Amino acid sequence: MSHTVEILSVGTELLLGNIANTDAQMLSQGLSELGLNVFWHTVVGDNPQRAREAVALAKSRADIIITTGGLGPTCDDLTKNVLAEAFGKRLVFDEGSAQRIRSYFARINRTMTDNNLQQAMLPEGCTILVNDWGTAPGCAFEADGVHVIMLPGPPSECRPMFQYRARPYLLSLSEGVIASHTVKLFGIGESTMEAQLRDQMNTMSNPTLAPYAKEGECELRVTAKAATDEEAQTLLQPTVTQVKKLFGDKVYGVDVPSLEYVIIQALRDRGLTLGTAESCTGGLMAKRLTDVPGASAAFKGGIVSYTNEVKEQVLRVPEHLLTQFGAVSKEVAAAMAEGARRTLGCDIALSSTGVAGPDRDEDGNEVGTMFVAIATRDGTHVRALRLGTRPMRERLRTQTASHAFDLARRYLSGLDYGE
Amino acid sequence: MSHTVEILSVGTELLLGNIANTDAQMLSQGLSELGLNVFWHTVVGDNPQRAREAVALAKSRADIIITTGGLGPTCDDLTKNVLAEAFGKRLVFDEGSAQRIRSYFARINRTMTDNNLQQAMLPEGCTILVNDWGTAPGCAFEADGVHVIMLPGPPSECRPMFQYRARPYLLSLSEGVIASHTVKLFGIGESTMEAQLRDQMNTMSNPTLAPYAKEGECELRVTAKAATDEEAQTLLQPTVTQVKKLFGDKVYGVDVPSLEYVIIQALRDRGLTLGTAESCTGGLMAKRLTDVPGASAAFKGGIVSYTNEVKEQVLRVPEHLLTQFGAVSKEVAAAMAEGARRTLGCDIALSSTGVAGPDRDEDGNEVGTMFVAIATRDGTHVRALRLGTRPMRERLRTQTASHAFDLARRYLSGLDYGE
Repeated sequence: MSHTVEILSVGTELLLGNIANTDAQMLSQGLSELGLNVFWHTVVGDNPQRAREAVALAKSRADIIITTGGLGPTCDDLTKNVLAEAFGKRLVFDEGSAQRIRSYFARINRTMTDNNLQQAMLPEGCTILVNDWGTAPGCAFEADGVHVIMLPGPPSECRPMFQYRARPYLLSLSEGVIASHTVKLFGIGESTMEAQLRDQMNTMSNPTLAPYAKEGECELRVTAKAATDEEAQTLLQPTVTQVKKLFGDKVYGVDVPSLEYVIIQALRDRGLTLGTAESCTGGLMAKRLTDVPGASAAFKGGIVSYTNEVKEQVLRVPEHLLTQFGAVSKEVAAAMAEGARRTLGCDIALSSTGVAGPDRDEDGNEVGTMFVAIATRDGTHVRALRLGTRPMRERLRTQTASHAFDLARRYLSGLDYGE
Repeated sequence: MSHTVEILSVGTELLLGNIANTDAQMLSQGLSELGLNVFWHTVVGDNPQRAREAVALAKSRADIIITTGGLGPTCDDLTKNVLAEAFGKRLVFDEGSAQRIRSYFARINRTMTDNNLQQAMLPEGCTILVNDWGTAPGCAFEADGVHVIMLPGPPSECRPMFQYRARPYLLSLSEGVIASHTVKLFGIGESTMEAQLRDQMNTMSNPTLAPYAKEGECELRVTAKAATDEEAQTLLQPTVTQVKKLFGDKVYGVDVPSLEYVIIQALRDRGLTLGTAESCTGGLMAKRLTDVPGASAAFKGGIVSYTNEVKEQVLRVPEHLLTQFGAVSKEVAAAMAEGARRTLGCDIALSSTGVAGPDRDEDGNEVGTMFVAIATRDGTHVRALRLGTRPMRERLRTQTASHAFDLARRYLSGLDYGE
């Protein structure tokens, strides 16, 4: 029998729209990969009666219930009480969990208030899912033919708790596997990509091919179901190869986390160093590069030159370029990259300058006018961008940083710089 | 009577985790602002039987049902069929909608396939919600004492369709308003905050007080319901005042978007400039500061000194400090802030140095060991942090940047620097 799963999220903040239910998304992805069928997502607030009704319904229709949220120390955290009641279990005090909570507070040098020990009350006979990423432990039990798994709500805890605690528990329950590969692309729109694949997608059933767009990037997920991972991989490979061939140098990797990850790896492999000079992206390029663990082996540093003064004095951009062409120009983008390469003493430097909005700049450049540049020992190249006036500031900045990264990726792969 | 709302999203892509349910978040925010109570979010896949059951349940418990998704031309788009059936309505062909679909395809120069005209089949007697942002029209009707509103799933259509089509329809149904204020705190844990408020929270009904924690910050949302906004404000004010008094200088603002926003405003008000020198935060401080529109009036720039070489050569951190105390030390944090103040020519400079993980640094400093510093004309101050080894890299970096911002906030407000 194939298992059916309901994800039940408890939290008024979800119903007020303060946050999106990213836990449900993350869990759904992970559960699908295990070959488990997620049939329902349900969200209720911190209301005991509606939570009870939701649990009763989930118990009647799903054979795995995964809850998120409502495990913390505050009085509106009611998940454990309601689940224990629905399955006729008492909550009992777990000294091991209490110890971990006390030492967590000792480690962060904070006084622990008594309400924190509520988190050590757990359903009798459950498997405790130790929380190494926060204070509230999770738990799992089987009762009345249903598996119940409770996970904390904060995404920074829910994600690792699923990965390292719930997943191993669930692995033993799943039959067959779903395997997938994700082909990552930059420099092509989702609809263009989709148009080239549409006929094929419609005729495929195993593997399947699904396009996604995010933040100016695209990805294609190829997914196959089979009895074993090996069989699934055999189904996947021809499609992955074909897609890579079809999109050529727009593909920057398969199953890689990000463009910046690919760059850091390529730099490390080749023993090269990178630096940045940022105006409109304001530190985002450096931030994204240093999101990659181990970035320090390749990324030397960056200059955020948000004013002309810093462009001149730190990056040594000649004053006449700023006067003649303005800060948002291909000449200044090139001089910034060259300046960063000199100042930071790195092999490759990337720069950005442009108008992220909300308003035009003082030279009358429209929002979305951007220049990114790369300086290397082989010379300097500038890419001019018109990203349009519609996207929000955050998105314009992200896309601009990605275009600069694309220049670095192309240089490091020996490709031409493209348009 | 106060209306209760269920948001019912139809789409297998949500259950596979391909996308997060951001429609539900956006709608929840908008509905709360209208004084409507969202009590349930439900997601089901493109499965007629489970969709029917979900609609029957929603009909039995909510008096407003808002659906998202399942209105498009592909064969798995079943929302209209299921809703029409549940409320005993036929679907009828609407020539006006068909015209709009045909001209949409003419405009984008694509051939229209016949399945697109399915989108012009609408429940008899409904109010058609014209879709100016895509092809599938939405619709609204009242039947069996329940209001039903169907909106398209793509967020770029769902958002304007709610704003310009559903919202006006709903405005006539809502009674009274819900108003809220959010008190933002830094430097206090959620459980400590909640312990000080618990007795009070339990006795309050209007206004209510709800704590939230995110990324090392806390907020308290005070919410009141009343017939008019003015009455709601009168209910809110005493609680806001009391909470501000209770938490003193841990409160950094009310209804402000972020700590960085507060700093940029304070700098602009006082005509002062800011710069940054970042090691462990790797550009995140600059990135967050430049997320604030208008930051350029106060933020001059930053140096990301990810290597000792850049600390020495760009920030002029004396080599003997790096040798004697190591890069992760209060001495180097201070020298970085002072160096940034000099190099960038700004009034106030912030710095960060520490170990964001995943591993200890070469000097044996544990993950989570962080120093942030502020340099001003009145001197330099360093705050040492032990953020624990457990949080993820991203979270450690965010918290460290926030601590640096807290120093700037305190300096600009004439407060002491705290612990």
